[in-house]
Amino acid sequence: MPKRGCTIWFTGLSGSGKSTVATGLVEALRVREVTKVEVLDGDVVRTNLSKGLGFSREDRDTNILRIGFVCELLARNGVVAIAAAISPYRSTRDAVRKQIGDGFIEVFVEAPLEVCIERDVKGLYEKALKEEIPQFTGVSDPYEPPLNPELILQTDRETVDVSVTKLLRVMELLDILPEGAPLLEAHEDEAVHAQLVAAGRLASRAEATQREKGS
Amino acid sequence: MPKRGCTIWFTGLSGSGKSTVATGLVEALRVREVTKVEVLDGDVVRTNLSKGLGFSREDRDTNILRIGFVCELLARNGVVAIAAAISPYRSTRDAVRKQIGDGFIEVFVEAPLEVCIERDVKGLYEKALKEEIPQFTGVSDPYEPPLNPELILQTDRETVDVSVTKLLRVMELLDILPEGAPLLEAHEDEAVHAQLVAAGRLASRAEATQREKGS
Repeated sequence: MPKRGCTIWFTGLSGSGKSTVATGLVEALRVREVTKVEVLDGDVVRTNLSKGLGFSREDRDTNILRIGFVCELLARNGVVAIAAAISPYRSTRDAVRKQIGDGFIEVFVEAPLEVCIERDVKGLYEKALKEEIPQFTGVSDPYEPPLNPELILQTDRETVDVSVTKLLRVMELLDILPEGAPLLEAHEDEAVHAQLVAAGRLASRAEATQREKGS
Repeated sequence: MPKRGCTIWFTGLSGSGKSTVATGLVEALRVREVTKVEVLDGDVVRTNLSKGLGFSREDRDTNILRIGFVCELLARNGVVAIAAAISPYRSTRDAVRKQIGDGFIEVFVEAPLEVCIERDVKGLYEKALKEEIPQFTGVSDPYEPPLNPELILQTDRETVDVSVTKLLRVMELLDILPEGAPLLEAHEDEAVHAQLVAAGRLASRAEATQREKGS
């Protein structure tokens, strides 16, 4: 069981690896006996929550706010809610963060556009580049990367396993999961910690040590 | 804690008392220390899930299926999800029932149209009768009462307290809540039981006794 619910909010280009990492996370949580987990990925949501919405800025925003609403309902009832939609606009993601509060964990799934185009799992980039799909994020519509996400995953340089392990570590450090055996290499652990400090979610280790000395 | 999540699906005319009974149920559940409870009433849903949808048959159906989707997510994670939307069409409610399965509890909140018009809490019937609101359920759009709901509440003839107590009893009989002290009068308890038998959710008492004797 997690200590509390939360919302893991993946954001990144189509093909960056959001759903793949989300699936890996669900598996890893199951191993830790965390079974109250729901994934709201782009396809699930477009079918069940947002049928009829298009890809205009306004429709995309509505879609994202709606996913945020459902994540909030789930998370406040102890569920690990995982959103895996592109969510290209920074201000919209920030609105969801504000709405959800403390339980919001933004994970930037970063892969260079060239890599996503090369992967092209759904064949969408090919169509977008031929202008058969309008307003395609990264091609004909903007993607605004987060400035201070809780975690950055560079899926072109690390395995899904490493990405998932980093996610579990973030959940430990934010007191959502109990601490497990250390699984990351020291430098990776440092980097995860540093990113949470940059996101304003943790005190730096120097500060923490200082505080302990003082007490 | 409930033994398992479920979806309490109120259906009935505007002004029949769906939200009032839902609010009473939330309170009563809190007293029993059931805190994982979410109410999705018409207004919450129209704001957060279905902005932009109108009141055509198709839009209403989309709205109801969407509420059903969210209730299912919540209920399968142990939450008591309470839907309180008019949900006028039988086939749509039945589609949600089929989707959710065993955890779906349909509650017909029955009050005669004249009573709802007299209450007219939101002033909507006045407008509908003047034809200022088109497609208004009960006035210019159909309401299809359920044929075999798990519970019928006649809110023009019973107090909110009694309605809520009946709901708790249904939840006990369906093994969602542990049995509490009997709170209904014997004839009311019989009626609640009989309705669950009619809905195909319980064996009749005669059958149950027969079975015990046989074993």
